[in-house]
Amino acid sequence: MPSSPIRKLVPFADAAKKRGVKVYHLNIGQPDIPTPQVALDAIKNLSETVIEYTHSAGNESYRKGLAEYYQNLGIDISSSDMIITTGGSEAITIAFGACLNPGEEVIIPEPFYANYNSFAIQTGVEVKPITSSISNDFGLPPIAEFEKLITPKTKGIVICNPNNPTGYLYSEKELETLATIVKKYDLYLFADEVYREFCYDGHSHHSCLSLKGIEQNVVLFDSVSKRYSMCGARVGALISRNRDVITACLKFAQARLCPPALGQIASEAALKTSKEYFDGVYNEYIERRNFMVKALNEMEGVYCPTPKGAFYTVVKLPIDDSDKFAQWLLESFEHKGQTVMVAPATGFYATKGLGKNEVRIAYVLKKEDLKSAMECLAEALKVYPGKTL
Amino acid sequence: MPSSPIRKLVPFADAAKKRGVKVYHLNIGQPDIPTPQVALDAIKNLSETVIEYTHSAGNESYRKGLAEYYQNLGIDISSSDMIITTGGSEAITIAFGACLNPGEEVIIPEPFYANYNSFAIQTGVEVKPITSSISNDFGLPPIAEFEKLITPKTKGIVICNPNNPTGYLYSEKELETLATIVKKYDLYLFADEVYREFCYDGHSHHSCLSLKGIEQNVVLFDSVSKRYSMCGARVGALISRNRDVITACLKFAQARLCPPALGQIASEAALKTSKEYFDGVYNEYIERRNFMVKALNEMEGVYCPTPKGAFYTVVKLPIDDSDKFAQWLLESFEHKGQTVMVAPATGFYATKGLGKNEVRIAYVLKKEDLKSAMECLAEALKVYPGKTL
Ligand SMILES: Cc1ncc(COP(=O)(O)O)c(C=O)c1O
Ligand SMILES: Cc1ncc(COP(=O)(O)O)c(C=O)c1O
Repeated sequence: MPSSPIRKLVPFADAAKKRGVKVYHLNIGQPDIPTPQVALDAIKNLSETVIEYTHSAGNESYRKGLAEYYQNLGIDISSSDMIITTGGSEAITIAFGACLNPGEEVIIPEPFYANYNSFAIQTGVEVKPITSSISNDFGLPPIAEFEKLITPKTKGIVICNPNNPTGYLYSEKELETLATIVKKYDLYLFADEVYREFCYDGHSHHSCLSLKGIEQNVVLFDSVSKRYSMCGARVGALISRNRDVITACLKFAQARLCPPALGQIASEAALKTSKEYFDGVYNEYIERRNFMVKALNEMEGVYCPTPKGAFYTVVKLPIDDSDKFAQWLLESFEHKGQTVMVAPATGFYATKGLGKNEVRIAYVLKKEDLKSAMECLAEALKVYPGKTL
Repeated sequence: MPSSPIRKLVPFADAAKKRGVKVYHLNIGQPDIPTPQVALDAIKNLSETVIEYTHSAGNESYRKGLAEYYQNLGIDISSSDMIITTGGSEAITIAFGACLNPGEEVIIPEPFYANYNSFAIQTGVEVKPITSSISNDFGLPPIAEFEKLITPKTKGIVICNPNNPTGYLYSEKELETLATIVKKYDLYLFADEVYREFCYDGHSHHSCLSLKGIEQNVVLFDSVSKRYSMCGARVGALISRNRDVITACLKFAQARLCPPALGQIASEAALKTSKEYFDGVYNEYIERRNFMVKALNEMEGVYCPTPKGAFYTVVKLPIDDSDKFAQWLLESFEHKGQTVMVAPATGFYATKGLGKNEVRIAYVLKKEDLKSAMECLAEALKVYPGKTL
């Protein structure tokens, strides 16, 4: 399994810190937002005296609560349509393992969350990328492009909405287009909606679970990691109305015994998180995003689409090679004793050679830091030896 | 993936409860022992305000603490020789995935922990069982038997010590015998030592990490689940002195981001568990075991070896079919409004047809309950229609 290009940068970041340079981490998806107090309190008020295995599909009380969360979104899901997993990550591995045979293929619009690749390799599944382009802000590629990739081995499409790394939010119309191919070729639609709560500018999120006519095809990945800023809880969910899928996935879930008990306690309590909390988070991210997008587009030769969801953006830079640039930022650059760490977009493309003039930026830093980080980046682009302007 | 024969019994247990019969669960490995107070307190005193992703290999402070735990056992292991995993379960899947290719084989003495089979299926690995027999209390089969099974595809041996399901504790001599084959054929020795603390009658545990000459071959699975009775924490570890193994396993660990943060906090605190706690647990289990072994061997036609470790025993019963017997206990039997649930040993053998007159019993119930359960079992054996006496 290949190391991600972000991992490869870690020693350089360590070296930067060693030479006394402050590094702004624009490269990671770890939000700085506090975990909701209700969730923290549930942990602090732990009443159990034995931390036992839970049900392999997760505590029933939590599953019922999560089903209610979905019902409140207008999505009819019951507690038996889901398996609580160890993060959204495990939902993905279990789904790939249970739904796909080694050698079978899934189509994924690229750039995509790099770990899809790792999970596919682990389960012997082949990823067929379909390139989405920054020139139309990473919207869904034409349906004809998907059809070109479909072979008898194609068993599914993976869609991440809102998208990591691009921040793109698929419209209802795009999802319906996708549904027609899913139905026509009877594919699985693996829908990663872990950033569901992060939609901006009044756009609402359309869940793949609401798509008509493909109810038996959709396998959804959910997670509390970003929703409640508790990535370390390691609680996610695999959701499907397809009984056979749930039955097959449950065998994988039983083999690993259960998802984390303490994380489930926190997650169940987090279901009671107030609207004020989410409003606060929304306002924070929208401010950061607006500031960042403006700052980036003011730099010469830079293009940053306005992401409508999640807290990432893939931005085009006037550079020769994003891997070299990211390493150079850490190894050789500093501005007022500071530098930035970005994720080369090459790591999010399966097609070799793509993403060389793009980086992913996560706006998970508070505004003052983001401001300093943007200043650094602007300065860096002026002096980077591999600049193409 | 096949459902385990224990899972198949769950609906019958539910039905027994519905008809008002109390079921003693002798079938599961969930101890009733309290989690150490230090671990519970660490959770209750949580100071974090953001439950963040930890390092993919686990918190460094916990890894250092765990390395110290090993050093106190006289085993020289450093914090960089380990990856903290989501339970021992994940250590096993990661190790199989990272060390073995699909189609390669591991030899496992049977009866064995049934989920080894599930993990092998998930990773495309073939399990070659080597039968150990109740007639010598499930000791290590002769080395010649192992050698008969070795082919160019054989890449490892899995040993569980103390053993689930048999309770057998391998002697230093047996382990050294094993080491000679491991060395001769340059195999991995996957050593599952999650029951290390549970050794009785003054016998001490010999870790595979102490075996000389195969330091690079040993991959160890550890877990806090049983040691501190906190199965729900989902914290384990994969330990190896082989750099290449750790590097390969770390890629799997990075893809799934990190092990549970809250469970790691509890686990780190649990390292400070007092000797009194362990003494109390030891006394409790030894009393239960002695009582149970005596009660079982007093039943006509029953043979129960005296397990020297863990908290299970595989016992021979005068019955036609352990699956039928286990189902009949739940469906059709009661004694004073009570019955017992046992695990048919067939589920622990890979060789079809074995284990038909054996069941696994876990002595995880307090003595009064264990007493009632043994009474039930004795009565049941007198009236079971498929009895062979
Ligand atoms: C698109 C996407 N899916 C899934 C995950 C997995 O997250 P977790 O396992 O923490 O739920 C992430 C994490 O960053 C992600 O970005
Ligand atoms: C022999 C053995 N290995 C590994 C495990 C996995 O336990 P966990 O994932 O809770 O650490 C168990 C659990 O019962 C076991 O009996």
